[in-house]
Amino acid sequence: MSERVAFIGLGVMGYPMAGHLAKKGGHQVTVYNRNSAKAEAWVKEYGGKSAPTPAAAAKDADFVFACVGDDPDVRAVTTGKDGAFSAMKPGAIFIDNTTASAVVARECHAAAKAKGLHFLDAPVSGGSAGAQNGVLTVMVGGDPEPYAKAEPVIRAYARMIALMGPSGAGQHTKMVNQICIAGIVQGMSEGFALAEKVGLDVAKVVEVISKGAAQSWQMDNRYKAMMEGKFEFGFAVDWMRKDLRVSLEQAREVGARLPLTALVDQFYGDVQQMGGGRYDTCSLILRLRDKK
Amino acid sequence: MSERVAFIGLGVMGYPMAGHLAKKGGHQVTVYNRNSAKAEAWVKEYGGKSAPTPAAAAKDADFVFACVGDDPDVRAVTTGKDGAFSAMKPGAIFIDNTTASAVVARECHAAAKAKGLHFLDAPVSGGSAGAQNGVLTVMVGGDPEPYAKAEPVIRAYARMIALMGPSGAGQHTKMVNQICIAGIVQGMSEGFALAEKVGLDVAKVVEVISKGAAQSWQMDNRYKAMMEGKFEFGFAVDWMRKDLRVSLEQAREVGARLPLTALVDQFYGDVQQMGGGRYDTCSLILRLRDKK
Repeated sequence: MSERVAFIGLGVMGYPMAGHLAKKGGHQVTVYNRNSAKAEAWVKEYGGKSAPTPAAAAKDADFVFACVGDDPDVRAVTTGKDGAFSAMKPGAIFIDNTTASAVVARECHAAAKAKGLHFLDAPVSGGSAGAQNGVLTVMVGGDPEPYAKAEPVIRAYARMIALMGPSGAGQHTKMVNQICIAGIVQGMSEGFALAEKVGLDVAKVVEVISKGAAQSWQMDNRYKAMMEGKFEFGFAVDWMRKDLRVSLEQAREVGARLPLTALVDQFYGDVQQMGGGRYDTCSLILRLRDKK
Repeated sequence: MSERVAFIGLGVMGYPMAGHLAKKGGHQVTVYNRNSAKAEAWVKEYGGKSAPTPAAAAKDADFVFACVGDDPDVRAVTTGKDGAFSAMKPGAIFIDNTTASAVVARECHAAAKAKGLHFLDAPVSGGSAGAQNGVLTVMVGGDPEPYAKAEPVIRAYARMIALMGPSGAGQHTKMVNQICIAGIVQGMSEGFALAEKVGLDVAKVVEVISKGAAQSWQMDNRYKAMMEGKFEFGFAVDWMRKDLRVSLEQAREVGARLPLTALVDQFYGDVQQMGGGRYDTCSLILRLRDKK
């Protein structure tokens, strides 16, 4: 069924996600982007309309998607001036694909409820490749009823969609995902850096150990980039630091301890200082290598 | 071809490995174990012979295997009093399946060479289940000629065997393996402990995130034990600490840094202090849980 949909935030993720909603989903999509040139480019590529504010984009939509940067951006496009909440129809559903805090998710959920709207936190994983191919994993927190309505629409850009629990549970799940990745990538970085120092053939090491207990998606898919030092792709260190910050804040709030996560967050700070803020997360190995 | 084989050290790993050499490999196996009752039990189960010392076991063998505990044990059964090197035939090959240091591997390699013998460091991965099923991964360091001769014999208990480089390279590869595991398991422990604190259904979280960038063998195969708190199986924390110690010493020697590995090694010390020295390595989550 063709739905009236708005999409706010046409970044590396949002641009192709909105595209899948239009093309694969067959929905009528109105887009908003802070930099309007990108919105015009999107309309040229996919049809639909662009709007000058989140509110204008969201006005007639039954489903309003957003994929923006961080907590303040989520607030701006929802409850902020000219935010979507000021214009959305009663019963309309806001689906936030931003990776943000559970605090902002619950805040927006409550604000939406007060206005007769719905809010789902729905961060994604799968990176820019997953967004381009429309095969993202979507981790949703919120109420079952709007979830059931939104799920078929989300499917346009997702391979896996799951309701993880009440508001905030989508963000919590994404945190677990990022924390696991932090451990995997740092472990691999240390292992490979040692392998290089002792003169092992790292490709051969991976061939042998990736069949057993040391195997990971990161090992299978990132060791080549790590070996070749080609980091200009994938999921940026700057964003990973934001995700780890959100995780560390969450842990502090509930009294959980994340010692490795805290350390890896600092290590990513080293990579930023080396000029690698836009590099893929597997660039963590850089700080363990001797400078040439 | 049936070979004359000796096997030194019938622990959790060695016992079934020697068994595969006898049964699957069809070799004539003479075993030695510090506790002779175990050697007698092995002979009862698999046939072959037992010997009172490593030297006596190794005397007539073309291939002498060992799977003992740590560096001092490797020295004891090779160059020590009544060690295998004192009795081995010229040209015979010692295959050390112990996870030990590259230093002891090279020491033994040199001592073997001086006596006209061969020494391969050949640590394994795959745990007790891999040993029981004869599907271990064997990472070998040493000279190509004895490797080529030993490879078909090793195959009795292995699914994958690879010559990784000169003497010590097998141990180096195993270190990389253990370092990667340390990162994976600590990351998972932090992620799951946070998930529990915020009230997520961890099984559902794993279902969702194990399809993507956070996936690992450890996640696929260990999350249940971690959730259920059943740690009396698998690869013991005590042994993991030994492997991490060896890795940390190696890194110090070559000027590599292993900050996460050093931290996780200490965390495993916490698990030991909690009485979990014999628990599987995934028990690392215990120290992040509140005491009940």
